[in-house]
Amino acid sequence: MVEINPNRLMHHLQTLRQFGAKDAGVVRPALSTEDIRARKWLVEQLSSVGLQTDLDAVGNVFGISPHPGRALLVGSHSDTQPTGGWLDGALGVVYALECAQAFAECSQSRNLPLDVVSWQDEEGRFLGCLGSRSFVGLLDDEDLNSITSKDGVLLRHAQKEAGLQHKSRRTFKSLSRDYGGFFEAHIEQGPTLFDEGASIGVVDHIVALRSLIITFDGQQNHAGTTMMHLRRDASMGLYRFADQINRRFPEFAGERTVWTMGRALITPNAASIIPGHASLELQFRDPNEAVLETLEKEAHTIAQEINEWLPIVVNVMRARPPIAPVAMSTSMQDAVREAGEKHAPGHVKTMPSGAFHDASILAQVMPSAMMFIPSIDGISHDFAENSRDEDIILGCRVFCDAAETLLLQWNR
Amino acid sequence: MVEINPNRLMHHLQTLRQFGAKDAGVVRPALSTEDIRARKWLVEQLSSVGLQTDLDAVGNVFGISPHPGRALLVGSHSDTQPTGGWLDGALGVVYALECAQAFAECSQSRNLPLDVVSWQDEEGRFLGCLGSRSFVGLLDDEDLNSITSKDGVLLRHAQKEAGLQHKSRRTFKSLSRDYGGFFEAHIEQGPTLFDEGASIGVVDHIVALRSLIITFDGQQNHAGTTMMHLRRDASMGLYRFADQINRRFPEFAGERTVWTMGRALITPNAASIIPGHASLELQFRDPNEAVLETLEKEAHTIAQEINEWLPIVVNVMRARPPIAPVAMSTSMQDAVREAGEKHAPGHVKTMPSGAFHDASILAQVMPSAMMFIPSIDGISHDFAENSRDEDIILGCRVFCDAAETLLLQWNR
Repeated sequence: MVEINPNRLMHHLQTLRQFGAKDAGVVRPALSTEDIRARKWLVEQLSSVGLQTDLDAVGNVFGISPHPGRALLVGSHSDTQPTGGWLDGALGVVYALECAQAFAECSQSRNLPLDVVSWQDEEGRFLGCLGSRSFVGLLDDEDLNSITSKDGVLLRHAQKEAGLQHKSRRTFKSLSRDYGGFFEAHIEQGPTLFDEGASIGVVDHIVALRSLIITFDGQQNHAGTTMMHLRRDASMGLYRFADQINRRFPEFAGERTVWTMGRALITPNAASIIPGHASLELQFRDPNEAVLETLEKEAHTIAQEINEWLPIVVNVMRARPPIAPVAMSTSMQDAVREAGEKHAPGHVKTMPSGAFHDASILAQVMPSAMMFIPSIDGISHDFAENSRDEDIILGCRVFCDAAETLLLQWNR
Repeated sequence: MVEINPNRLMHHLQTLRQFGAKDAGVVRPALSTEDIRARKWLVEQLSSVGLQTDLDAVGNVFGISPHPGRALLVGSHSDTQPTGGWLDGALGVVYALECAQAFAECSQSRNLPLDVVSWQDEEGRFLGCLGSRSFVGLLDDEDLNSITSKDGVLLRHAQKEAGLQHKSRRTFKSLSRDYGGFFEAHIEQGPTLFDEGASIGVVDHIVALRSLIITFDGQQNHAGTTMMHLRRDASMGLYRFADQINRRFPEFAGERTVWTMGRALITPNAASIIPGHASLELQFRDPNEAVLETLEKEAHTIAQEINEWLPIVVNVMRARPPIAPVAMSTSMQDAVREAGEKHAPGHVKTMPSGAFHDASILAQVMPSAMMFIPSIDGISHDFAENSRDEDIILGCRVFCDAAETLLLQWNR
């Protein structure tokens, strides 16, 4: 049976952490110098384990096993948020590396077709899940040519800068590998496991998400000379709308419904000027699409009420197409649950993922599964993000065990 | 009796408009190249009428009459907002210039001590009412050395750039002139006169103003993975606070109370991140300080309610010391009202000024008065700002008439 090396695991995590290290966190956005250095380090590590390794045109790292059969693809992403935590996607990448190394050292597993991947730009500097979208065939070359980063850099310039301009893109189709599934480990990024004292989260599905943009158009004017009854103050509409959402959504919400209005823009945003324009983004998630449907209707109702109450124009539109819930493979879940109960009996929890992950994309082309380990205090996307060493090591044992079980099942 | 020249008046207004003209508006912030060019043009005009003219160290333009006696200081400011209207302070400056020219042409008035001024930076690129504050003695050289503009320019560098580094500052004290008062004309910047069909506003006082900063401190986190009951969302507090202000202030407000929450900052302002911090500026004005006192208490009560409701920390502090209401001289008001009734019988309205003006500062050292003309649709601080030609010409007649009456009274 496959055995991990905990010291090597922790050492690799700390090595990867150094690329872009800042305070306790990491600054390693997709296609930055540090990101490419980290990916080249991974290429070396995977080569030394005997995998056929490659950095493709968008910066995905692949390590393909030379062994035939029904393969398992394991991994996550090594790019970070602009000010990211050290574990986030890096944990799943290093688990995959450790898994490949442990397999190579194990007589029973060394010939199993285990492939490793580190997806590019899960965090969306250029496009959220750019690398996995490219792999499953959601992007063509024309799409890629027009993508610009949040900081104004053309993707194709960043690719050239990184020396990737003459590479081709690896896709599910071009690899023509017989994949049995994709398996991704990740920190939970929420407090459920940590607060409940659980060690392993088995993801049953990734929740659905909707995102609305609400705009408020009034008339900009002087804040001292325009009497209240003559105002067309866009900000009044925004404040009322947002507070009504927070007051009324609980009535329609399920147990795991979340909603956030984290982005608000008021124009011109000056203390002495009545705002003529404002906009708000409302994002809401739930395992159940019917709940989201009801909430979206309620948002329209509230907007209509404000249209009637104030002499401003309120508009609601979708920020992007709705994201449907993505089910994880039940047979793969079973393997993870079983491995979890073996190493941490009674500390395994089946749960949805509130966050979007590359596994949501991979599920379009193959059965996919995800496993979580606890985040201390549920903190993520922050320099303070962390997990306990014992949880990291236990998680890797469960991950490799489940990977081995699946590959043995598929290649009996 | 003094007679204005309407063609010359309109010509001067159009000439001044060209300095920094952009579309229908003007971009002429304090101490910009265009601002200094406009001020040098005014120096020339005032010299040609026989006034002793000077641009002082902060860029105030003075035109001092050579005639002795109890003097009247007339004028306003010629700097604009970053994207300003063409009339704003420029109207009062050109009225003052026309007044000096009309006096020089009138046998009865040519020897009256009428002084003209264009104050610097009323709009607050460096400091609101910088020029008038300097004049009345509210600023010392040390204060001036440390002032930096909103766009990061040191005042003393801008002064040097404008060639003012070897000038001294003219102050009320250094002039040692026997001033009977200061008289400023301005567009109303609100819709009262325009909507009521009135032609002349006689300002009885400039309203009091208070400004609070409300901060909301919670915990930044992932918007997908943090369940609602575990959130410490700073934005929820801000939205509730602002909406409660808009719901509850009407109960305590007077007829002319206004309040605005035109500046809100949410950190990090991203759709997928629960905001850890937010802040809001609440500005409120009224002729009566007791009303403002009650409103300020209510803001604290609402903040306390939110402190109890949400697991976040809400703090209220004053953005700056309260501004007390400033009374205009009653005898000067009478002269303006009388001149108004002569030229526009039945179309004169006594009213407070909701906006702050240089006259608020001047009132600290001498009796002061203000006169308004109608703003079309009440629009100001916007390229669309405008007034009807007939209102501009009528206003100048009333202004010069009142100035002559006051000077004749004082120098009988």
